Amino acid sequence: MKINERFLELKDSYLFAKVGQKTAEYRAAHPEKKVIKLSIGDVTRPLAPAVVRAMQKAVGEMSQKETFKGYGPDRYCYGYASLLESIKGSYRRKNVALSSDEIFISDGAKSDLGNILDLFAQDNLVLVPDPVYPVYVDTNIMGGRRIVYADATEENGFLPMPDERIKADLIYICSPNNPTGAAYTCEQLKVWVDYALKRNAVILYDAAYEYFIEEDGLARSIYEVEGARECAIEFCSFSKTAGFTGVRCGYTVVPKELVRSGASLNRLWARRQSTKFNGVSYISQMGAAAVFTEEGEREIRENIGYYKRNAERIAKMLRDLNLFYTGGKNSPYLWLKCPKGMDSWGFFDYLLENANVVGTPGSGFGKNGDGFFRLTAFGDADETEEACARIKKLFI
Amino acid sequence: MKINERFLELKDSYLFAKVGQKTAEYRAAHPEKKVIKLSIGDVTRPLAPAVVRAMQKAVGEMSQKETFKGYGPDRYCYGYASLLESIKGSYRRKNVALSSDEIFISDGAKSDLGNILDLFAQDNLVLVPDPVYPVYVDTNIMGGRRIVYADATEENGFLPMPDERIKADLIYICSPNNPTGAAYTCEQLKVWVDYALKRNAVILYDAAYEYFIEEDGLARSIYEVEGARECAIEFCSFSKTAGFTGVRCGYTVVPKELVRSGASLNRLWARRQSTKFNGVSYISQMGAAAVFTEEGEREIRENIGYYKRNAERIAKMLRDLNLFYTGGKNSPYLWLKCPKGMDSWGFFDYLLENANVVGTPGSGFGKNGDGFFRLTAFGDADETEEACARIKKLFI
Repeated sequence: MKINERFLELKDSYLFAKVGQKTAEYRAAHPEKKVIKLSIGDVTRPLAPAVVRAMQKAVGEMSQKETFKGYGPDRYCYGYASLLESIKGSYRRKNVALSSDEIFISDGAKSDLGNILDLFAQDNLVLVPDPVYPVYVDTNIMGGRRIVYADATEENGFLPMPDERIKADLIYICSPNNPTGAAYTCEQLKVWVDYALKRNAVILYDAAYEYFIEEDGLARSIYEVEGARECAIEFCSFSKTAGFTGVRCGYTVVPKELVRSGASLNRLWARRQSTKFNGVSYISQMGAAAVFTEEGEREIRENIGYYKRNAERIAKMLRDLNLFYTGGKNSPYLWLKCPKGMDSWGFFDYLLENANVVGTPGSGFGKNGDGFFRLTAFGDADETEEACARIKKLFI
Repeated sequence: MKINERFLELKDSYLFAKVGQKTAEYRAAHPEKKVIKLSIGDVTRPLAPAVVRAMQKAVGEMSQKETFKGYGPDRYCYGYASLLESIKGSYRRKNVALSSDEIFISDGAKSDLGNILDLFAQDNLVLVPDPVYPVYVDTNIMGGRRIVYADATEENGFLPMPDERIKADLIYICSPNNPTGAAYTCEQLKVWVDYALKRNAVILYDAAYEYFIEEDGLARSIYEVEGARECAIEFCSFSKTAGFTGVRCGYTVVPKELVRSGASLNRLWARRQSTKFNGVSYISQMGAAAVFTEEGEREIRENIGYYKRNAERIAKMLRDLNLFYTGGKNSPYLWLKCPKGMDSWGFFDYLLENANVVGTPGSGFGKNGDGFFRLTAFGDADETEEACARIKKLFI
């Protein structure tokens, strides 16, 4: 019996689990300290009232024989029509037309980003931005694929563009980016789409943070770009948009035009999901559908506004300290250069011990993250204010 | 860009999706007919009141900042302590002692049965019963593994025992079996465990239907067998036990003694899940925890009793028709020989068109399913009664 030895090539532990572990250890050793987390990308605002009502209604339906729901509908890989219609409507507002069978309801972008790799052979060259969400790299190490990196640095505004010398087969784009917060314009994405089309490559486009975009010209969906239907899969999530980190719902778009080696990736994904997945909770899907109602959207916008104000507080603190940073405008993440030439984990420990504030070491996101640090705007407003005050005190 | 060409080796479509599709087509063509489904293993009883209350409470908690839950706890791959404690308690009642970090909360056995294969190299020989739940075969075809079959026939009471000539690395056991309903005794499983230990193989034990067992001596968990901790992973689900097909919750047990090539499969699974999964809905987990309360268990037993009475109705009908069948006693499935020498899909069509009853063709579960048919006891009692009457009428 042979295990998948690629697992042994993985770094010790998943970045956020390590951050969580060190935080838990510190808390256990210092129970009197009030530790404030600006680290993991977890939300803190409760679910919107419209979402709560929809979920309570759904639970009620599950209590009665006549309205009880078992497995989701086969036709759309367990996705309910009301949710699919709502998603289609939100795409129409971005001038993108999708059909129901191009939308696959997921239990979150992370699962689908990992599981989509089932569709691709091991022998593919993977292009990943550096720095970026560690999951793209780790999942491909598990799959035994070769990985090359697209450097995101101050020089290119943390928005790498294609390097024609690299013959990438799978291209990860996360926009707005985790951890830098940098977001591509449609024009820039067109260059990536053309690059992918030329190589028959596939773009895996992570749109988890698109709801945070406030500037015109930035892409809300890869499909706003001509040609993307023939080369891109889009991964979306309600986690950050609607606070669903504990509810688990998202959706993955696989256009029917996406064909490789004569095979429809849309049909392959449907086959993969109908074989290795049994759908998303009815209650979660109904909660997600409520996100698209008038009151749902209004309440979601309020929550996002709350986080954006946190982001601005953190940004102001960084400006006051004269620390280089990016992000925070179209993203809940701020990406800053560690002060005093500290390295990422050094600054992590320093901040935790001296300010009792937890952030995420940039080096966990890639080599270009060395000397950088990520702070998130998802926390409580007062705690974020307090954290900013504590950090400022350390350096002024 | 190379796709995973193994997908092209898969049969046309997943069995249950094909059954669903043919049923939908028939219904569309004959809207006046009342079609009764004794096919897919979906439950019909609503959630138990104790479960509903727990889920309503959980939704309420998600509506308030102070009690809102984001990502599940890192420590146990997003599993909540209350649910883990309940599961440990249920194992203790089977004289099995597990620790919390050996239990991984899943969104259902199907996902984990597919995803566990990430841990194993392609170069492993897979042993699958025939007939059995198609997922075991399809997921390994996707993974490019060689598959051999353990024949389950009338001769061995549909309970194959090890064949020493076969050097299996991964061994699937589903007990009580889907689709035959046959269930192993602890003594029989000891022979399988010894076989696996001798070869350093791993048993993937699907216990999805253990709640239906009513006869003494039949195993409720593989870990009732000595040595199983060193060679078996157990997959459990609330789908059939508690009607969670639309709620999505289960758990996978990976004992810490399970080590292969010096690697702890428990640690590998934790790494896989923390990288490719983000946990199960808080609401679903709290509903699952309620299954183990006193009233929860009582209400679950009532629902299972309802399904068992359906199974007895179907069994009686088959006896009246003098049709060979097995199952129905420790399982919600009945496995019968098709009448009049019909083959499986022939009987499917015949039953759908002449009795407007939907079952599942045995051939979809393996070559030993040719000429057999599966009926399930999960439907409404009156409809099951009516379906039995219609079928009886066809043959008497």
